[in-house]
Amino acid sequence: MPEPQGFVRRIALPVPALGNNIADAERLKAVLKKTLSTDRVVVPLGVAKTLPGRLRTFNHRLKTVLFREDVGWRVVGVEDPDGDDPICGIALDIGTTRVVARLMDLETGETLGERGFDNPQISIAPDVLARIHHATDAEGLEELRSAIIHAVNATARELCDGAGLAMESVYLMACAGNTAMTHLFLGIDPSYIIREPYIPGVNIPDPMDAVSMGIQLNPNARVFLFPNIGSYFGGDLIAGILCAGIHRREKPSIMVDVGTNAEVVLGTRDWLIACAGAAGPALEGGMSKMGMTAGPGVIDRVAIDPETCNIEVHTIDGKPAMGICGSGMIDLAAQLFLSGMVDIRGKFSRSRCGDRLVTKEGIDTFELVLAPDSGTHEPIALTQVDLNSLTSSKAAMHSILEVIVQQTAGVRFDDLERFYVAGTFGSFIDPTSAISIGMLPDIPLEKFQVLGNSSLEGAARLLLDPDLFDEIDAIRENLTYVELNVNQEFMNIFSGAKFYPHTEKSRFPSVKVWGQA
Amino acid sequence: MPEPQGFVRRIALPVPALGNNIADAERLKAVLKKTLSTDRVVVPLGVAKTLPGRLRTFNHRLKTVLFREDVGWRVVGVEDPDGDDPICGIALDIGTTRVVARLMDLETGETLGERGFDNPQISIAPDVLARIHHATDAEGLEELRSAIIHAVNATARELCDGAGLAMESVYLMACAGNTAMTHLFLGIDPSYIIREPYIPGVNIPDPMDAVSMGIQLNPNARVFLFPNIGSYFGGDLIAGILCAGIHRREKPSIMVDVGTNAEVVLGTRDWLIACAGAAGPALEGGMSKMGMTAGPGVIDRVAIDPETCNIEVHTIDGKPAMGICGSGMIDLAAQLFLSGMVDIRGKFSRSRCGDRLVTKEGIDTFELVLAPDSGTHEPIALTQVDLNSLTSSKAAMHSILEVIVQQTAGVRFDDLERFYVAGTFGSFIDPTSAISIGMLPDIPLEKFQVLGNSSLEGAARLLLDPDLFDEIDAIRENLTYVELNVNQEFMNIFSGAKFYPHTEKSRFPSVKVWGQA
Repeated sequence: MPEPQGFVRRIALPVPALGNNIADAERLKAVLKKTLSTDRVVVPLGVAKTLPGRLRTFNHRLKTVLFREDVGWRVVGVEDPDGDDPICGIALDIGTTRVVARLMDLETGETLGERGFDNPQISIAPDVLARIHHATDAEGLEELRSAIIHAVNATARELCDGAGLAMESVYLMACAGNTAMTHLFLGIDPSYIIREPYIPGVNIPDPMDAVSMGIQLNPNARVFLFPNIGSYFGGDLIAGILCAGIHRREKPSIMVDVGTNAEVVLGTRDWLIACAGAAGPALEGGMSKMGMTAGPGVIDRVAIDPETCNIEVHTIDGKPAMGICGSGMIDLAAQLFLSGMVDIRGKFSRSRCGDRLVTKEGIDTFELVLAPDSGTHEPIALTQVDLNSLTSSKAAMHSILEVIVQQTAGVRFDDLERFYVAGTFGSFIDPTSAISIGMLPDIPLEKFQVLGNSSLEGAARLLLDPDLFDEIDAIRENLTYVELNVNQEFMNIFSGAKFYPHTEKSRFPSVKVWGQA
Repeated sequence: MPEPQGFVRRIALPVPALGNNIADAERLKAVLKKTLSTDRVVVPLGVAKTLPGRLRTFNHRLKTVLFREDVGWRVVGVEDPDGDDPICGIALDIGTTRVVARLMDLETGETLGERGFDNPQISIAPDVLARIHHATDAEGLEELRSAIIHAVNATARELCDGAGLAMESVYLMACAGNTAMTHLFLGIDPSYIIREPYIPGVNIPDPMDAVSMGIQLNPNARVFLFPNIGSYFGGDLIAGILCAGIHRREKPSIMVDVGTNAEVVLGTRDWLIACAGAAGPALEGGMSKMGMTAGPGVIDRVAIDPETCNIEVHTIDGKPAMGICGSGMIDLAAQLFLSGMVDIRGKFSRSRCGDRLVTKEGIDTFELVLAPDSGTHEPIALTQVDLNSLTSSKAAMHSILEVIVQQTAGVRFDDLERFYVAGTFGSFIDPTSAISIGMLPDIPLEKFQVLGNSSLEGAARLLLDPDLFDEIDAIRENLTYVELNVNQEFMNIFSGAKFYPHTEKSRFPSVKVWGQA
């Protein structure tokens, strides 16, 4: 079995002699330069301090823990080559609402544990904008920084405890977050991210010592943050691209991250186009406001028989329905439309909905779950206002895709080899439903691939494969960030996309609506 | 007046705009890459944190404090371009017995203060060997490390207080010490320096954050340690070469550092040969044991009228004589020899010495200062044993020079363009006296140049001139370290050199002894 070429390498050093008496650190560097085919190896003080003793205790053989950095390779640990303790790393996805950490064995690639927690910054300021405002003074910034750092430390400790390991076993941490979250994690003033001309403090943070950030792992541990492209395109998306592999394919593919914003990356191994962030008024009240977060009793799947209009809802854990999440909402809209209960204009059809459609405070309201069956003892309902909001969101998504893919890149939807759906919310979307309402383009289902937490996954892969640093550089170099121009043309496209599935029915040949030929 | 090209540079950044919206740190890097003609600039987290606010407060103009490191240039501070606070650095000479720190203004080059103190490690273990033994366990090493670090912190504070500056004004520290002192300063295990095959832990320490070493300066301050060549040739000598400039001259010159050991560097801009450390039994009881340290009442100059044999002694501060220091000893030996009171074999001449020569415990003893005139109320005397020891030392020095200069390098003493005498002890040696006893070669006096604390001076110069990093690299590359081979041939040379001034009188044409033609 060939030695895995990750960040842990077993090496043997020449035994020093009167004729070969260069210093220990330089002998280590010389061997590593050869092994790694590099001309720069850094041996930090923390490693150098005990190197002479360790080298001799281990008889001039070492299990070295390395990291690849802009300025060369760095030695992060020199350990017993015959020791059994795993050499670990932590991949971290720093979401605005949710943070997930994965503990990994850097030699085997095995996941030793994974834990998610709500971003504790939420209790200080709920969303990105509020947090940036809170961080305007140094004290507020420090409050936000230390909140997330403490939570990460606690989680790292839980993960290590769970795996029966000491914190010293963790040598590397790779973190991916959006631009604002990256700034707050590092304690870098984020004030100008949200002010024209939207300037981040740092796009490519130099890797740093965990200890200098207050992160408690191995005393020599290094922390890498995925670089940002700009204020509205962060390291989480770079990690996502790395995970999807768009940048490795000959033919065009696309990744859509449906989270707080809709973020789109399209490209091949030769070029990448990205578009992200608020697309103006069309996206306001967009994807994120469509429903409650997934949890017990939340409706995540809806099926309506077009003949009988019989409704079946599926809740998480099978508990009585409490509400509906985003993916359930898309399912519901699709099923309502396919069964004729919502018309092509996105309005409830009184004749098809029957008793389910009631008027409350002058607003048409569709009762999906009746009061006696619900977990709240109130009907779980969808109002025309809710539906209009969903319609706007799906139309915005389609318009963005139309503009980026077909107009900007000149790629036909049919030519897309893969359609990756990323983000926790995206993971639950049923592509058939999303196509049915015209949110996603009508391409063969097998082209859709759900990535889940692609940001975490990208960070995890980086910890196992030094070559991915080159890929990150290539992604950054090849990527063109396109500002979505919400002009009259966009609004025209948007207007057409507000129909179900679209004013041009021919774009959605697979969508068969009840009662239509 | 052209802008000085040191480590403080005033720059202006392009003002960000929608068309030029790269991140602040990357914009700073881009400008510095151009300004410094480099492809690598590191902006550490500590600087990045406040960069966005500072850039805008200072209207996109900055006084940047930089440092040059192996992996590129590093931004150590971004300050108000119109601010009056000086940007400072500290040069540090870490001697085994004495440590000296110099506070400097990095823009003007002005010295703002200088302070010396006894190396506090002395009270833990007196000499290099004892300290290395003490550092065998991690606790002992830490004890030695923290002793020197605390003393450096206290001295840095005194220097800043003296100059009316905050510690935050100090951004850089350049330190030079021998290999063992460098290890103890950094807390690197020095155990193998003194065991065959004499391997240092580190020869070229990567620069590090002051804060990671427990040194309290500006929070982003960097510390540079002059690299070692090997266990017996440390960074203090590299700094010394830098100060003397041997490596810049077309014609050969030599630097002799007469301190605890005799260390010799010879060369031109194309080659360098060095030799240092204990030269075996011939040097045992060598230079360092010749006398007491300079201080009030210590005899540092002696003059003897060869006609009258009248003796004049000069003491430091003109106080009554307490003892004699090394340079006084060389003066005394020279004057005794030139006046015929010591013969060419290095023995006291009873006839010439007269009453001054007494026998105490069977040993011929020369009373330099009689009891009534001395500050101790005892005679200040030189015994035949003391003189023999001096004779051995001067013979060893001459032999080393002979072997290195004439035999190894094939350079005649007459061809030396400069003869630099370094080291605190060396500063006080009168070259005429040293030539008279055959310790130094008989070359024109104007070729001798006293460097004083060349280690401190080299460190200080580095803080003002980034180009010196290239010179350090060149010195390291061009320098060949020669192990002094104390074989029969060396012992033959040594035997000849034990005569006054030498068995071959023709080597010292300028030495005129009383009573000789």
